[in-house]
Amino acid sequence: MDENFRQYISGLKEGTTKLHALESLLSPDDALYVRRSFISEETGVSLEKAGSYTMDVSRACSKNCENMIGAVQIPLGVAGKLKVKGEYAEGEYYLPLATTEGALIASINRGCKAITKAGGAEVRIFRDGMTRAPVFAAKSVPHANEIVGWIDDNTGRLREIAEATTNHGKMKDIVCFVVGTSVYARIEFSTGDAMGMNMVTIASEKIAGEVVKETGAVLIALSGNMCSDKKPAAINAILGRGKTVSAGIFLSDDMIKEIFRTDAPTLMEVNTRKNLVGSAKAGAIGFNAHAANVIAAVFLACGQDPAHVVEGANAITTVDPAEGGVYVSVTLPSLQVGTVGGGTGLDTQRECLSMLGCAGGGESSGSNSSKFAEIVASAVLAGELSLLGALGAGHLARAHKQLGR
Amino acid sequence: MDENFRQYISGLKEGTTKLHALESLLSPDDALYVRRSFISEETGVSLEKAGSYTMDVSRACSKNCENMIGAVQIPLGVAGKLKVKGEYAEGEYYLPLATTEGALIASINRGCKAITKAGGAEVRIFRDGMTRAPVFAAKSVPHANEIVGWIDDNTGRLREIAEATTNHGKMKDIVCFVVGTSVYARIEFSTGDAMGMNMVTIASEKIAGEVVKETGAVLIALSGNMCSDKKPAAINAILGRGKTVSAGIFLSDDMIKEIFRTDAPTLMEVNTRKNLVGSAKAGAIGFNAHAANVIAAVFLACGQDPAHVVEGANAITTVDPAEGGVYVSVTLPSLQVGTVGGGTGLDTQRECLSMLGCAGGGESSGSNSSKFAEIVASAVLAGELSLLGALGAGHLARAHKQLGR
Amino acid sequence: MDENFRQYISGLKEGTTKLHALESLLSPDDALYVRRSFISEETGVSLEKAGSYTMDVSRACSKNCENMIGAVQIPLGVAGKLKVKGEYAEGEYYLPLATTEGALIASINRGCKAITKAGGAEVRIFRDGMTRAPVFAAKSVPHANEIVGWIDDNTGRLREIAEATTNHGKMKDIVCFVVGTSVYARIEFSTGDAMGMNMVTIASEKIAGEVVKETGAVLIALSGNMCSDKKPAAINAILGRGKTVSAGIFLSDDMIKEIFRTDAPTLMEVNTRKNLVGSAKAGAIGFNAHAANVIAAVFLACGQDPAHVVEGANAITTVDPAEGGVYVSVTLPSLQVGTVGGGTGLDTQRECLSMLGCAGGGESSGSNSSKFAEIVASAVLAGELSLLGALGAGHLARAHKQLGR
Amino acid sequence: MDENFRQYISGLKEGTTKLHALESLLSPDDALYVRRSFISEETGVSLEKAGSYTMDVSRACSKNCENMIGAVQIPLGVAGKLKVKGEYAEGEYYLPLATTEGALIASINRGCKAITKAGGAEVRIFRDGMTRAPVFAAKSVPHANEIVGWIDDNTGRLREIAEATTNHGKMKDIVCFVVGTSVYARIEFSTGDAMGMNMVTIASEKIAGEVVKETGAVLIALSGNMCSDKKPAAINAILGRGKTVSAGIFLSDDMIKEIFRTDAPTLMEVNTRKNLVGSAKAGAIGFNAHAANVIAAVFLACGQDPAHVVEGANAITTVDPAEGGVYVSVTLPSLQVGTVGGGTGLDTQRECLSMLGCAGGGESSGSNSSKFAEIVASAVLAGELSLLGALGAGHLARAHKQLGR
Repeated sequence: MDENFRQYISGLKEGTTKLHALESLLSPDDALYVRRSFISEETGVSLEKAGSYTMDVSRACSKNCENMIGAVQIPLGVAGKLKVKGEYAEGEYYLPLATTEGALIASINRGCKAITKAGGAEVRIFRDGMTRAPVFAAKSVPHANEIVGWIDDNTGRLREIAEATTNHGKMKDIVCFVVGTSVYARIEFSTGDAMGMNMVTIASEKIAGEVVKETGAVLIALSGNMCSDKKPAAINAILGRGKTVSAGIFLSDDMIKEIFRTDAPTLMEVNTRKNLVGSAKAGAIGFNAHAANVIAAVFLACGQDPAHVVEGANAITTVDPAEGGVYVSVTLPSLQVGTVGGGTGLDTQRECLSMLGCAGGGESSGSNSSKFAEIVASAVLAGELSLLGALGAGHLARAHKQLGR
Repeated sequence: MDENFRQYISGLKEGTTKLHALESLLSPDDALYVRRSFISEETGVSLEKAGSYTMDVSRACSKNCENMIGAVQIPLGVAGKLKVKGEYAEGEYYLPLATTEGALIASINRGCKAITKAGGAEVRIFRDGMTRAPVFAAKSVPHANEIVGWIDDNTGRLREIAEATTNHGKMKDIVCFVVGTSVYARIEFSTGDAMGMNMVTIASEKIAGEVVKETGAVLIALSGNMCSDKKPAAINAILGRGKTVSAGIFLSDDMIKEIFRTDAPTLMEVNTRKNLVGSAKAGAIGFNAHAANVIAAVFLACGQDPAHVVEGANAITTVDPAEGGVYVSVTLPSLQVGTVGGGTGLDTQRECLSMLGCAGGGESSGSNSSKFAEIVASAVLAGELSLLGALGAGHLARAHKQLGR
Repeated sequence: MDENFRQYISGLKEGTTKLHALESLLSPDDALYVRRSFISEETGVSLEKAGSYTMDVSRACSKNCENMIGAVQIPLGVAGKLKVKGEYAEGEYYLPLATTEGALIASINRGCKAITKAGGAEVRIFRDGMTRAPVFAAKSVPHANEIVGWIDDNTGRLREIAEATTNHGKMKDIVCFVVGTSVYARIEFSTGDAMGMNMVTIASEKIAGEVVKETGAVLIALSGNMCSDKKPAAINAILGRGKTVSAGIFLSDDMIKEIFRTDAPTLMEVNTRKNLVGSAKAGAIGFNAHAANVIAAVFLACGQDPAHVVEGANAITTVDPAEGGVYVSVTLPSLQVGTVGGGTGLDTQRECLSMLGCAGGGESSGSNSSKFAEIVASAVLAGELSLLGALGAGHLARAHKQLGR
Repeated sequence: MDENFRQYISGLKEGTTKLHALESLLSPDDALYVRRSFISEETGVSLEKAGSYTMDVSRACSKNCENMIGAVQIPLGVAGKLKVKGEYAEGEYYLPLATTEGALIASINRGCKAITKAGGAEVRIFRDGMTRAPVFAAKSVPHANEIVGWIDDNTGRLREIAEATTNHGKMKDIVCFVVGTSVYARIEFSTGDAMGMNMVTIASEKIAGEVVKETGAVLIALSGNMCSDKKPAAINAILGRGKTVSAGIFLSDDMIKEIFRTDAPTLMEVNTRKNLVGSAKAGAIGFNAHAANVIAAVFLACGQDPAHVVEGANAITTVDPAEGGVYVSVTLPSLQVGTVGGGTGLDTQRECLSMLGCAGGGESSGSNSSKFAEIVASAVLAGELSLLGALGAGHLARAHKQLGR
């Protein structure tokens, strides 16, 4: 090891150099090298593989990750083609999926095959808006009422203040909720191709400042958990956060038999007893088979925030009887995605987004993130179909006669 | 490109070779190369970075990921040292964290500093058991009652059948829930150092077969969503799934002032209005600030299933008044972790687990996964502390006087 | 028994006369007498007390109750005076409370005493609107999207159609929610002094008819459970149904000591560990001590629908630290009340509403039901205060020193 | 008015006599008369009808209602006969229903007719236990762990202490839940024919005292909301509270057509889109049409606690396809009923319980309350069937062709 590096490591050991200060003293790759060497010595673990990254870390260590020591490598596979018929995504796609769960991609792949063969997933975005909900303290219930009144009366003014902080965001609405002396102002933004949390947070801070100044409210926290970010919450399942998307597909009896080796009544029964009644009894917010698996795999591949898998899991899967087959759908009320910002600019992640034709900002603002959302919803539909089919085939088909149904 | 590879790519294009068949025709790295080249040509995206992995893919492509084309690289940083006082983890640790969310590691790091300075996080595991809940159809309500009765009367026999399928697992309990003609048998296992889903699923299949044979029940799905896996569900928040862990720390008034630049009443007010009342109003299952962020970052680094972030987010954070300071805690009812199996054996992930001294099976079965769970809970506590402190400092301190409180 | 009556009873026994047909053959009181006699003979129970009602049954048997045989008598007591400072209720009230739960009225009474002594409950109505949400089936996800689009584009026209069905109701909004091929249109009405379910249902039927005609949607059910009526549901806790009301009161340290024999920190701790954290862990929608008890007792006395106690129980109780004491509040997001229609016109119930000065229609439409809602919320606050105080006094005060807090 | 009474009224006005003290000075009826006269003068409302009760108030004013001034009269009707095939209820019953909601009894009646014609509701009780969950404060997370350990190790001793407080109750289990430093001990009792809340509360107080003494825990509240009493909570929907009961019935295609003028696919579609998917989207705990209506009406008639309608509403209704028809069920996880204690001893209420043959204590302890629970569940099934049928017939039948299904 270079003597110079040795010296920094000594500084770290002695506490005269701070771990996070290395980037200000060394080039990014050298900073990582020194920090990794230090941690390696401290823990006795080689970290050789963690250090054998090929990503350009200059951006990563300044925008994505403090105290960086290298990179984790996660296996990347593909499923597809998956045919999508949305308003933004129109065509056939190979899905990039990063996962360590054996059999997951094979399962999604089978679902893709069925959907594509059946003509493609019909997808629509029903709602789109990123939210932040600061919480204010009022002196009393009547004071809370005044604060809400003031916000309702001054939405226009607050919109101006909010939109002055961003080039891409548009404030859609502010909705106030009150619990005693706590006032939650849920602020909703259109955020173009960005997932938009930072944008909304910055705008919310300005709005909050104005509310405090004009109403005597005290700002307790910029996020009051009515947003609701990265927690399972009914408010997101009901009102949506990020994009609310549904994808559906008609499967004929022949196709159900051929691809899934089961039949329409079985698919319906599995969905009802498992996804609907089972989830109901479990006190669930999500009524699906494994939406989180698919979302996690696409999110990791494409540089999305993996903690947003939490809200992605709020999905409802349905299987309707239809003439000559079934209509299967999945609805994702709170899919939080972006094609700019966050992890989307990292090398491998950007390649994955490019595979779907939606890396970076879209031709019209928001078109790429919408396209991406439609593809994700279709991928989730593929995953649901495949798992329902497997459950139906493996166990139900033969056993069903037992009950004479 | 090698002519031989060219030929496989042609086969893929013509459909005579299947994407998933390449591993049976070529070495793992070559199979990846051909598949990646094909996808690259199909999509017009170079995939150069995705192809520049250094992991040993022979295991990954057979156990973790079908249709593999390479790897995604996710920035890896560290926070700490974090002092932990658990029953399995006892010492100071550098936390490996894979994330693309700027400022997250810095925030966790500040929390680690506070905890370590305050003497270390007190952690305990309250419950430990992985669950699977097959759903059966009964002919009628009385038949459902008979099925439940039979299962209750034959738990010993079912335990034998279940435990014959595994070397490491022990069946803890079967609890039945009924909704009309649907019977959900929630089977719980001790799974040693493995996260244990596969183990439990295999054992559940045997149990289910016996139930079907003896009671005339029809098995509808091996997972009836009462498990509940990767969906936000109250049952996991109440009864637990995987490990139920709490971590706590006493912070003196001085330390709150020094590290977080705020005070005890402010920390309590932020926690009450945001994490408790805000979450209550949002219809949440999770009552915390950002547990999912921390869990996602540790899980990605350490080869855990990222879709299990969903249940990890079911956390409750509390701030109690205490003489001379506050006692802050976080409780994670359903932390699903393992140190063997899944993604834990991949090169970079194994290095990260090694940093914590818990890669692979523990000296006594389950001791490594328990140690890991205690560290994760302490890390979440660090993240909660830091965010509560930031919210408290930034906005409350000065504003508080306004209301004369 | 009159021979004539005997003959009807024979007819009932032989099945030639239908139980529900008696009112078309006899005067109301005679119809009740005959029916009661028949049931008495069939069951061998005298039903003497059930028959000794004094209410005027002519209205009841045609509007409130089919197959009437008499009346149930429920003990009626009073609590108060309770001072209320609302926008509609301004003054001191004796609360009429019908209950069979010993100690309940005594408890509420103690709360009233505290509130009145402290200057009166501060109450505000934050939202007001009764909802009905028909569910429609669409052919596909894109069709669902078209239906929603049509409804959004034609809100004005639907408002006209809706308001043509009522003299008192005003349509506030229609909000659509989609799950796959199910479209839920949540229609919200101002309903004056009526609780308003019937009004909204009739209007919704007309709206639904128009939607079906214009969009090709199929109406599946006039109520699609997104209303949500008489089921515990987060949507009501978040968006409100009926009236969203908060009541609050500042209690000084002296008063807490004098009336409740406890102190401010104890009240806060009881509320946090029980109403907030305990409810959170229980997967609750309601975060209160016993709001349902108070609501049930006032509702029974005042002719409200007792099944609406379900939504009334969605309350959140808070105890804030405040200089020299605490500020206690309760928020009822979905209080469904009326002073006309339903059971409000029955003799004893009307007397109870009169005690509060809000029987029948208000001077301005809606003023009486709003006044009543403010009083109910204040009564719930009294109940919460009293129970928190009792819990705090009985057990905490002395024990607290044990932990040195 | 008697001069003597005049004098008490003056005392009340001057504050020298307390409202609640009248029973110690006068006979029950006179106390009521004086109190009612006073309230009448204070409010200017005659209260004549409230005063024309016929119940024996001597018991009511000491056990059920403080500050009593009379009684509220609620219309009482009947539905039936309803045939029930349970383990405790076996036969045909006329249901006593107290309600002010027009059309409710007619609707239930139609459901009864269908069930009886179809051979009777099949009912089973799956679980039975009343719960109370005191909350304790621990000093730290490890202390919480010790408390739980101590309770688990001393269940036998705690059972003895608990059962010494009651002649009828048997302690079934104690299950501990921890959130940070809060320990919730959910204590479950068999309570015979009593609903059992008081019994469990008294026993819990003794248990809590022992826990405090032995572990250094501080008792914060005898009810920590994990019980969970009179709040909508997933814990009751999952684990049950009171009785967990299911009722089911097979309806042939002919019967569906004849009685409900609809068909099997329609009934299934209404149930799926409304009760399952609609409730799922609403963030509901209850997945039914109007269970609360039926429960409220039976509860009021039979002297049950009307605030327990809250937990009663946690019901799930299912409609399964079955050969030649459908199997419809309703499951009530937390039906809290009793035939002794509370309001069951009041005159009219006792008559209603007698109509069902379950007034007072059963031949074997608990047999009457179990019988009553089975009848209530069957009544709820009747209500669900009837409303689903009405929704199906009114709107679906003709419209269905539109979509070509």
